[in-house]
Amino acid sequence: MRRAHDDRETHVTNPATTLFSGLSAFPLTPLTDDGVDERAFANLVGRLAVHGVDSITALGSTGSYVYLTREERAAVARRAVQHARDVPVIVGVGALRTQQVLACVEDAQAAGAAGVLLAPVSYQPLSADEVLGLYADVDRAVSVPIVVYDNPRTTGFTFTDELYRAVAELPNVAAIKIPGVPAAVDEAAARVAHLRELLPEGVAIGVSGDPAAARGLAAGCDAWFSVIGGTLPEHALAIAQLAATGRHDDALAFSERLQPIWELFEKHGSLRVTAAIAEYLGLVPPMSLPLPIRGLDDAARAEVARVVEVLVLPA
Amino acid sequence: MRRAHDDRETHVTNPATTLFSGLSAFPLTPLTDDGVDERAFANLVGRLAVHGVDSITALGSTGSYVYLTREERAAVARRAVQHARDVPVIVGVGALRTQQVLACVEDAQAAGAAGVLLAPVSYQPLSADEVLGLYADVDRAVSVPIVVYDNPRTTGFTFTDELYRAVAELPNVAAIKIPGVPAAVDEAAARVAHLRELLPEGVAIGVSGDPAAARGLAAGCDAWFSVIGGTLPEHALAIAQLAATGRHDDALAFSERLQPIWELFEKHGSLRVTAAIAEYLGLVPPMSLPLPIRGLDDAARAEVARVVEVLVLPA
Repeated sequence: MRRAHDDRETHVTNPATTLFSGLSAFPLTPLTDDGVDERAFANLVGRLAVHGVDSITALGSTGSYVYLTREERAAVARRAVQHARDVPVIVGVGALRTQQVLACVEDAQAAGAAGVLLAPVSYQPLSADEVLGLYADVDRAVSVPIVVYDNPRTTGFTFTDELYRAVAELPNVAAIKIPGVPAAVDEAAARVAHLRELLPEGVAIGVSGDPAAARGLAAGCDAWFSVIGGTLPEHALAIAQLAATGRHDDALAFSERLQPIWELFEKHGSLRVTAAIAEYLGLVPPMSLPLPIRGLDDAARAEVARVVEVLVLPA
Repeated sequence: MRRAHDDRETHVTNPATTLFSGLSAFPLTPLTDDGVDERAFANLVGRLAVHGVDSITALGSTGSYVYLTREERAAVARRAVQHARDVPVIVGVGALRTQQVLACVEDAQAAGAAGVLLAPVSYQPLSADEVLGLYADVDRAVSVPIVVYDNPRTTGFTFTDELYRAVAELPNVAAIKIPGVPAAVDEAAARVAHLRELLPEGVAIGVSGDPAAARGLAAGCDAWFSVIGGTLPEHALAIAQLAATGRHDDALAFSERLQPIWELFEKHGSLRVTAAIAEYLGLVPPMSLPLPIRGLDDAARAEVARVVEVLVLPA
């Protein structure tokens, strides 16, 4: 399933579009009582590189970035770049305080990140002006492209289209990770077309919410920022590659086959389910999530095991 | 307006109830570009002690706890205890990861905190079991009472009554800070009576949401966890003391006079408005909130100034 990375070199006129296209896989950051299991993390990253994902986003929500200390995050960023071979690494830099975000940007760049992913993490609800101010402050500080990370469920902040445009006009903003697309295929296409109209040329649009990914790619998104892609890269690449060659019906059908996984995501949250899959497959140690997140209970783990036996192990 | 602190000594049979009664004032933690302005913070705390508030809660939401590093929080906790004279100090210990919460508990206790305030801060939405697990883990680690801090607007987590009960049954849980009471006086009384029924005996109930405080105290809450009390202690004490002597109509009327402040809270958030009041009064340096929170714009600051001139300076 390895893709020829030379593909990317043909689009040198717009490095941002090539960096933010295809499958960006989000590895877990496995934890033990003592902190990050750096060896298990390195293995996850190496595995993604071997499979030939288009990019690796370390320290996304799937990578529990916001639960880690600055030092832990810096170490994870370094490991990601070390083990990603020639696959570009994007690093999540969100934090509650701008000062902490800027520190994480510095560390990510020092580690060799090709881009940074930034969500407006909040405790006190933020205004649109404050969020724009955050991106402007980071924009002035970075030397790599920024992916705007819109994830209202975790940040508590909802972007408007106006704010998308204002943020995307900042010189270093190169992509927006949108939280999903409408359920109807034609509405999804209309939504992505509207965003293209709205955003400056060259700003990539990436879909997230794995169950909506095939639909998002069919609707014209450039990239899929994928939770499951960090743990089951073969499955995610199958969908992304069908979509990349215009075989959207086949991509949608493949995604449909993974419906039992999407249902578990819906029921328990994608992070808990993905961690349980990785734990079941022995890719990460048991109880790998940061407390107070406890992962799945035994009944839910049994459901995960059944789904993995049917959908994953024969692959 | 100083109250006789000896009042508290008469309730020695239930120290938790006496600790968590009356007015708990939440000071701001003023920031500069270089970090916490410890001198301005110490002055805020000393001022509250002189006015005779019943307790001081450092590092509440008003004190921007979740934006600060462990080291900054430890320093603030120490300063609070040093400058609070004989007023007991409660310290906010919430953080996204249980490990960080436990570190803050250790630091708060080492600083001499009389209690700790704990909200289920979240990024990934937490389940009720996970939140109960968090409180149980902290309960096992503390040597001082815990205040359960229910603030759905900032944490994204909503407690059920069942969870209130389960958490309150933990041995060291001594109080619950509820987010408010219903708008009708009789419904507010019914709500507090229901909570009394539900919770183990001796667990105190504190109201927050300053505009609802007089109503909450009239409805039978033991304490008022007060944003404005940390910056305008005279005004908050006037309400709390009227309520403590059963003069609830007068307390409600006094609160009604502060309606222009409550309207600003509603419009801009209590933290931004309180910081602007403190900045206008010269109690903290300008731009004292942690970025990306930018505080009020010039128009809103002008509104604050007008309200302060009318309601605060003549006091």
